[in-house]
Order: sequence, then C-alpha cells, then structure tokens
Amino acid sequence: MSEQCITGTGPYNIPMCITPDDIGDGWWEARSQDGRQGLVPETYVEIISAPEPQFPPPPPPMVADTGFSTNGYNTQQQQQQQQFSQQQQSFEDWDDDWDDDDDGGSSNSTGGTSQQDLAGQGNFGLAAPRREGKQISPGSEMSKYGTVKSSFNRFSHFAKSGGEAFLLGQTEERVSDSDKIRIVETADGPMWLNQDAAYTCTVTSPKKESKMKGLKSFIAYQLTPSFSNLQVSRRYKHFDWLHERLEVKFVCIPIPPLPDKAVTGRYESEFVQERMRQLQAWVNRMVRHPVICRSDVLHHFLTCTDEKKWKVGKRKAEKDEFQGAKFFQLVEPPNQALETRDLEGKMEQFCKFVMNMTDNVKTLITVHHDYAKKQIGPFKREYTKIGTSLKQLAVTFKLESSDYSRNLTTAIDLTGDAYNEIGEMFEKQPPREEYPLIEALYEYKGILQTYPEVLKVHEGAIGKAKECIKLQEEGKMNETEVTSVLTRADTISYATLAEMNNFQRDRVIDFKAMMQSYLREQIDFYKKLTEKLETALHHYDNA
Amino acid sequence: MSEQCITGTGPYNIPMCITPDDIGDGWWEARSQDGRQGLVPETYVEIISAPEPQFPPPPPPMVADTGFSTNGYNTQQQQQQQQFSQQQQSFEDWDDDWDDDDDGGSSNSTGGTSQQDLAGQGNFGLAAPRREGKQISPGSEMSKYGTVKSSFNRFSHFAKSGGEAFLLGQTEERVSDSDKIRIVETADGPMWLNQDAAYTCTVTSPKKESKMKGLKSFIAYQLTPSFSNLQVSRRYKHFDWLHERLEVKFVCIPIPPLPDKAVTGRYESEFVQERMRQLQAWVNRMVRHPVICRSDVLHHFLTCTDEKKWKVGKRKAEKDEFQGAKFFQLVEPPNQALETRDLEGKMEQFCKFVMNMTDNVKTLITVHHDYAKKQIGPFKREYTKIGTSLKQLAVTFKLESSDYSRNLTTAIDLTGDAYNEIGEMFEKQPPREEYPLIEALYEYKGILQTYPEVLKVHEGAIGKAKECIKLQEEGKMNETEVTSVLTRADTISYATLAEMNNFQRDRVIDFKAMMQSYLREQIDFYKKLTEKLETALHHYDNA
Repeated sequence: MSEQCITGTGPYNIPMCITPDDIGDGWWEARSQDGRQGLVPETYVEIISAPEPQFPPPPPPMVADTGFSTNGYNTQQQQQQQQFSQQQQSFEDWDDDWDDDDDGGSSNSTGGTSQQDLAGQGNFGLAAPRREGKQISPGSEMSKYGTVKSSFNRFSHFAKSGGEAFLLGQTEERVSDSDKIRIVETADGPMWLNQDAAYTCTVTSPKKESKMKGLKSFIAYQLTPSFSNLQVSRRYKHFDWLHERLEVKFVCIPIPPLPDKAVTGRYESEFVQERMRQLQAWVNRMVRHPVICRSDVLHHFLTCTDEKKWKVGKRKAEKDEFQGAKFFQLVEPPNQALETRDLEGKMEQFCKFVMNMTDNVKTLITVHHDYAKKQIGPFKREYTKIGTSLKQLAVTFKLESSDYSRNLTTAIDLTGDAYNEIGEMFEKQPPREEYPLIEALYEYKGILQTYPEVLKVHEGAIGKAKECIKLQEEGKMNETEVTSVLTRADTISYATLAEMNNFQRDRVIDFKAMMQSYLREQIDFYKKLTEKLETALHHYDNA
Repeated sequence: MSEQCITGTGPYNIPMCITPDDIGDGWWEARSQDGRQGLVPETYVEIISAPEPQFPPPPPPMVADTGFSTNGYNTQQQQQQQQFSQQQQSFEDWDDDWDDDDDGGSSNSTGGTSQQDLAGQGNFGLAAPRREGKQISPGSEMSKYGTVKSSFNRFSHFAKSGGEAFLLGQTEERVSDSDKIRIVETADGPMWLNQDAAYTCTVTSPKKESKMKGLKSFIAYQLTPSFSNLQVSRRYKHFDWLHERLEVKFVCIPIPPLPDKAVTGRYESEFVQERMRQLQAWVNRMVRHPVICRSDVLHHFLTCTDEKKWKVGKRKAEKDEFQGAKFFQLVEPPNQALETRDLEGKMEQFCKFVMNMTDNVKTLITVHHDYAKKQIGPFKREYTKIGTSLKQLAVTFKLESSDYSRNLTTAIDLTGDAYNEIGEMFEKQPPREEYPLIEALYEYKGILQTYPEVLKVHEGAIGKAKECIKLQEEGKMNETEVTSVLTRADTISYATLAEMNNFQRDRVIDFKAMMQSYLREQIDFYKKLTEKLETALHHYDNA
C-alpha cells in the first residue's frame, strides 16, 4: 500500500490528492480538498502534477480497499461508477436541523448520496436501479404513491467501512452474545433466526405542529410500538434519519425507500393521510424484519421520548461499531461451508428474479393505474350514459299515463337510477381496490430497486475471495489466510442468502394478502353491481 | 273544380300540365308528361304558357282533393312538401321481376317512393322523419341493424285514394260484415277489437337459391304460419312488396320499415342470419297487429305456395277496393262522437310522445352501440392487461420454486387466466345483450319515424272537417252534410286513436321484454364474472 500522494482531478475536475493504484483493478484512493475520501475510477483521474501535497496532509490511510467488484461472478458488469466520497459527510448538522422540516431537501445533507452520479451497471445481470429524484415524478399521477428514494451506494459503503479488513480477519471487535445475529439452515435454505417475540407498531394521528413561535411547522406522526404501548412523536425527517442509519448498518438488507417528501401541499389532509399510510407500511416492514426489529437504532426510534436522550441515542447509532462491513461480525452463520457453484447458481437465479419481478411490478402498477383511470373515467361514463338515457326515456313514457304503462315507466326510471349508481360505484372503487394494490406494488418496486445495490456487496465479497484463491495459487497468500477469507465470505453469502429467503417469504405473504384483498374487493364490487341490476329487474315484475 | 289545364314546370323544372288552384291553400293538381298525377305546392310551379295542352289530354279529374293539411290543428306546420305523383306507378313490372333479386334497387321501382324528395315539416309538432337512403349508413356500424326504409307519403296517398270523397260520404262500397274492422271503447280509450285467434309465423332456414341456370341467385326464407303449419318460401322482394301493400292499404297504421337491402355481402352467413332475425321481428309485428293480421294481403303472403295463384292474389291485393282513404269504410267505430278539444289534446300529447321517444330511442341506440364497442375494445383490453401482467408475474415467481411459494405462483397464474377469460367474456357479450337490445330499439326507431306520416292523414281529415264547419257557417254547406263529414272524420280519429293505443300497448309489452331480457343478460354476465373471481380467490386458500 503506497502512501505517496499525487495531485490530480477527479470527476467534474475536482482537485484531489490521489493515493496511486496499489489497490488494483482501476480504483484509486482519493481525497478531496475538503477532506472527503473515497475510491475513484482510475480513468476518471487526470494527473496534473508530481506528488506535492497542496492540501493538508491526509489522515492515516484507511484499510486497503480492493475493487471488490472486479472479480465478481459476472465480469461483464464490473464498470461500476462509484461516487467519490459519499459516506463520510458529517451527520452533526442533523441536530441543528432538529426543528427544520420546511426545507424540503435538508434531510439529504445528512450523509445522503448525490443521486445523479450513482448510475452504473448492475451486477448478477441486474441493471442498477434507475434512481428517481425527488422532484421527478414519472407517470405524473403515479408519484402520489411516492417515488423511489435512492438507496446509497452500498458496495462503496461496504468497502469504505472495512469490507476487506473484515474478509481478511483484521477486525475483531468483541460481539456480545445478545448482539449476535444467527442464521439457521432450513429446508428452504439459510434463514435469519427469529430470536425475539414479534411486535408491531402503529402510525397514527398526524398532527401539524410548529416551533419557533410558528415560524417552522411540520407534521408529527404518533408511533405506538406494541411492546411498550408508549406513544412517540416522529417527523418525516426522523424517518429519513432512521432510513439512512438502517442502510448504513444493514448493508445486506434492502431497506425500502420512504415515501417521497412532498414539495407542495404537504399539510393537506389527503396527503397527510396517504403519507401516514405509507409510513405505516414502511414501519410494518421494519418491525417485521427478523434482524432490523432487534436493532438498537430502531428501538431508539420507536421508544425515545426525551429530546436529550434522543440526541445521545442518535449519536450512538451514528457511531455504531457494527455498521456496514462490520455488521457481518455480528452474523453467526451455520458451520457448513457453501458450495461455490451452487451459490453462484442461486445468485444468478435470484438476480434474474429481481430483474424480472421489477419489470412485472412496474407493469402491474401501470396496468392497475390505467384501470383505475378507466374506472373513474370511461367505465363510469358508460354506465352513467345508460342511466341517463333510460331516465330520459322514462320522462317521455310518463307522458302516457295509462294504468298498463305506469309500472313500466317507473321500472325504467329506477333502472336508470341503478345504472347511474353503478357509474358512481365505478368512480368510488379505485380507493378501495386499485390504490391499495398499487401502493403495495409500489412498496415492492422500492425494495426491488434497492436490491441490486445490496447484491453488489455480496458480489464484491465473492470477487475478493476469488482473488485470494488466485493469490494462493501464485504463492502470495497462505492456505490459512485464504481459508479464513473464504469462511468470512461465506458469512456474507449466508447473510445475503438469509435475506433473500426472507425477501421471498415476505413476498409470498405479501402477494397472497395483496391478491386476496384485491379479489375480495372486486368480488364485493361486482356482487353489489349485480344486486343493483337484480333490484332493477324486479321492478318489471308488475310492469 | 276547374278542368282547365295550363302548362308549367314543377319541381326540378319538369314540364307539367297544371289544373289550377281551385283546391286551395297553395296546392295544385298536376300531371306530368308520362301521365303521373299528384299535388304540387303552388310555389313550386312556374307558369310558362297559357292553357294549351301539349300533352295527351288528362284523364277525368279525380275527386277534388283539398290540401287537408292546411287546417290541421297545428298551423305552424303546414308547409308540407309533397312529392309529385309517387303512388301511381304501375306495379305490373313486378311480375317480370319475379326472379330478379340481383338488382339491389329493383324493388324500388315497384311503386316505391323517391326518398330524396320527401323532406318536409312534420305535423302536430313532429318533425318529418329524416329519411336515410339505402346507401347512407349513419354511424357506420349502426347500419348493420338496418337503416330506416322510407315510408311513403301517406297523406298524399290518402288524399289521392279518395280522402275527401270518403269524408263527404261519396264512397259507399258495400262492406261485408266479416271485413269490418271494429273499434271498441275501453278504459284506456278506443282499441281495435281483436276478432280472430292470434297466430304466429316463424321465419327460418334461409337458403341460397338460383334461377335461370344459376344466372340469378337469391336468398329464400321459409315462413311457417302457426294456423296452417305449411311452409312458404319468400324472398326479400316479396317482403318488400308486402310492405308496400300494407302501407298503401293501412294508411293509419305505421308499418315498420323492412331491414335494408344489402348492397354487398348479402350471401354471407352472418348477414343472412341477421336479416332473417330482422325479418322475423317484422313478421312478428305484422301477425300480432289486430288489423293487419286479418288482412287478405298478409294471408296471401303467408300461405300462397303456387306461382300462378301468387300472381292472381298479388294483382287482387294491388287492386284492393279498400285501400288508403277507403280503408276507413271498413272501420266500425263506437257510436259516440269525439270531443274535439279532448282529441286535439291527445294528439298533441301523442305527437310530443313520438317526437321525444324518437330522440330517446336514437340516444339509447347510440349509447348501447358505444357500450358494445367499449366492451369489445377497452373493457376487454383492461381485463386482458390485468390477466397478462399477472401471468407474467407468475412466470417470474416460478423461478423461485420453494414449497412455500408454489401455491401462490399457481394462484396468481390462475388469477391471470380468470382475468383473461373475463376479457373474453366482455368481447362475447354484445351479441347476447347489446345487439338484441339495439335491434329491438332499431325496430322502434323505424316505427317512430314512420308515425309522423301516419299522423298527417289524421291531421288532414281534421283540417277538412274544420273547413266544412266554416263552410256551414258561411252557408256554403248544410248541417246534414257537415254532420256526415264530422262522423266520418270521427271514424278516422277513432282509427288513429285505436292505432295509437295499440302502439302504446305494444310499446309497454316490448320495452318490458326488452329491459327484462337486457337486465337478465347483464346479471348473468356479472354473476359469471363474479364466479370467475371467486374461483380465483379460492386458489389462494392454500397459498
């Protein structure tokens, strides 16, 4: 590892101090003028002078960080563009922002990623998620279900947080038994062990609150976890902070994006209710996750009622020793080593699954969104047209008022009413049947779009393990070292597989519930529609 | 009545011999070069020379024919344009045409009206029917239900066939008791007395036949009346002839138009079946009419199997003594005189009814036609899109084949099938539910568009009666004469009222049946749809 520093420009011609390439595979360690550090692709760097530090001397170099992705099992997908220094921003400005909900973008400054530059090719045959910026709402009306908030670059984070050090066994913090996250082998493959009693948490009673004599206002949601039954008040920015912490800590778990932060109309009742529903869905998913539900950070979020204690817990969470790569130290996998070929097959299959399901879910969202629009528009219109024309006919028929015709006239008039009511039923149906389905699908869209980044972590670890086997073949590493690396790579693989299985279990539960509830609503709707027609038909019995 | 003849030009500058205006109210008797005679509006005539006959001398003048419409109770509507000489063409060319079905227009030459020139303002507040030419198919696809074939000018026919003579009691042919058509007073007003047992007649087995060694081909339909149970074979042109005879004879009864004669594709199975169904509906209406069902001409049409006898019966029908105005000689009304004001109120109400119902029926046709198009197009498409997207999702879900997910995958796949089937159900529904309704409505559209012409006959008679009262006031007619006229005008009124009541009774029966059958089909459809969804839902029980 060289500690030599040369000066160059990175992406966007930012002057940087470069630690030249002993990391390998086209990735260089770099440090910018403001002290941010990270990996940059070699091709992005233009050397402008001999090493002659113009910036303050660099801090002690980080644990050497190989470009994990380079030897991953899908070599076509290695040209990842990794953003320069995304993770090292200070979180300290967060506390100052405690009362500030008015700045739509403020939460982004707390270590959030610069979304525009994250584009890159995926892995395992997966395209990287197309990140949708907050202001960009594709399909216009679809944005009401919340656009997908970007996940940060997990591989980069993993690498930066000591991925290689973990693999090489250089990090040996002590893990208390209660902190251990166990993975058990089941008939369906490795699964997270559900160690604690399940709990739930309700999100209710959104209230508009204000601070600083009304200068700053925000919506506060009341969260009540079942284990404490004590209400805590949380704002969107608290959710945003939690989301960030979970992403940082649980590098192998896709954290579904939060609903979008609204730019306008965020105090409107309808928006607030929708937001609350979406936050409830997000909280549901977090508390139901066997690993996340046990985490200190979530516990802090769900229980802390005191502002001072909040800040303490917040800082503690941000300084959590077992974040990112070090998370895997907590993981206790089964003893059995994984079979590489079997694993690669599973990963490829799963990547294909995620990719295809992403497409399917997007299609379903579009289809049901269109269907909802059709229900409100043309479907309603057709039935109303029938209703109106029958009622007009009844008006004419009333001109002829003989005994033998009166009942028919009434029956036709009532049939007209029935069709008008059916038209209204169509108009009212989407919030009962289409929107809940679309919301559930939208949540999955978010999870699925987060997954490729998650899988990069594993891909990187596998790549590193392969590299070590090569080094052993070349006599540059000894067997003990390599075995140790492979065991640790297996830990990452086990965690990834356990999470994949967790995803699949959740998927089955969620899609079953989704489809059942959708079909029940449809059945209920068509039964009511049929009843209306039957009632109309009976009016003709005496006509 | 002047017998003086001057030469002029009528509409379209046709040279005519004019019998100048002693008829009054702007109507002149005219005779064209080819011997056709009729009334023309005075304003249409340009006198080009002094009376100096250039044509063969006119036949003995007809019974003086007043412009009946002029004193009708709706004086705003008197400027009727009546077509010059529409009824007097020879029917003799018909026999020569016995085998000719290939000429799409041939049936028009048998005394048919020149449709283009029949436009005119209606009566009793009714607009004259907008006649739709055979080639004109408004709303494109709507033409498949048959456009409305024009009725001929009934008032003109009535006048020409001796309307005034009848009113003045100058026609006293002897009527046998069995020929008498009785009108009885009921709680709902005057009604035709149903004297004979009801019968039905089936129209079945359309067969393509040919004559002249295959040079001429046509479709023959098999008609079987219930009273004889003997099949007769009839072609479209026979129906056309019958239609014409019924219009000529039953001047106060709206004869619904026949389905259009097809210009192309008339041997195609689908067209033939549709035509057959429409002819069946037309025959149903004729045999169910209390007056028409008893007529010799219908009887001849329904029973004659011998070609020679056909020609004899055909000529007899064409020379029927009791056609047009003389039809009223057959009518035996209640003895009680009608109260003029009451009658006028009823007529105005009925005219409004016909006018409004015409609009209603047109709207209903459009609405249901649109709805049928929506069912075949967008409705089917929406459900198929849902079905397809679910089946695609199932394909992805099959990539994950663990025990806990297999049943869900199957359930989703089967739900996809259910939605695809629902899509197909929508596509197949219009022939079961919309098309029969539209056909029934189309039949009513035809009847309603025929009615204004029918009412003109009555309007003319009432006008004449009023004229006579005036003449009596002026001392130009004596009381006995006028009383006689009023009695005969009452006969026409009674017949008109009886037919109006007949129409209303039929309407109630028809619209009840129409609506019941439509609603039953809709209910059946939505029940099946619901069942499909319920079956789909059950698949999730074990998922």
